[in-house]
Amino acid sequence: MSNEPISLASALASFDALWSPRIATTVNDYDVRVAKVEGEHVWHVHDDTDEFFLVLGGELRIALREAAGERTVVLPRGSVFTVPRGTEHKPYAPVPTEILVIEPTGTSTVGDRHDEVPDHVDATTGHALN
Amino acid sequence: MSNEPISLASALASFDALWSPRIATTVNDYDVRVAKVEGEHVWHVHDDTDEFFLVLGGELRIALREAAGERTVVLPRGSVFTVPRGTEHKPYAPVPTEILVIEPTGTSTVGDRHDEVPDHVDATTGHALN
Repeated sequence: MSNEPISLASALASFDALWSPRIATTVNDYDVRVAKVEGEHVWHVHDDTDEFFLVLGGELRIALREAAGERTVVLPRGSVFTVPRGTEHKPYAPVPTEILVIEPTGTSTVGDRHDEVPDHVDATTGHALN
Repeated sequence: MSNEPISLASALASFDALWSPRIATTVNDYDVRVAKVEGEHVWHVHDDTDEFFLVLGGELRIALREAAGERTVVLPRGSVFTVPRGTEHKPYAPVPTEILVIEPTGTSTVGDRHDEVPDHVDATTGHALN
């Protein structure tokens, strides 16, 4: 397989499923995943890894349960945020939103511990891009 | 220090230097760096790590010396590419261009081996964002 640049817009246009990330490329043992999201994800935590978010379009909000209490960060298009390992969080998108996520290969979308996973959330370690 | 979302546009507006990346955030032991680039970088190679590029604006070209010969990949705005470890490469931007780069913390912009570094290229492991 030839190693060619990938258009994120084309990658995102190749699927419709929400909360179901596709692996666009890898960097060492990390995945670069893209996802379409809207509505609520689920409270979950990654015990052993940070999770990086970049908002490509729309707006992502991430509720965080921190030592000081619960708060929500708002990520407009073109902003980035890293959820620290061990921090319970729940992503939410008020409008159709496109995100890029970087985390170690094999990281589950619902983390190591999570609330009951609703039907609209894909519990996966990422799907191949077609 | 509170952990807040970062606008990539604001981060890029906070400095002028070309080929001189700023660390926007980290993910585990990786840096997420942003840089303004134009013109030629320098042939170099990272022996032990891949290097991920995302083009935020403008156009990045990356010349690659591969087993099959030399080629150049073209990354328009919104595209991504991973240079595999051990591949000699030279980034080049024909127009003012803004990029996001992800690589392990401590990775030098000029790699482990490189041609003579021209004055306009900053040999650095990345600068803090002010």
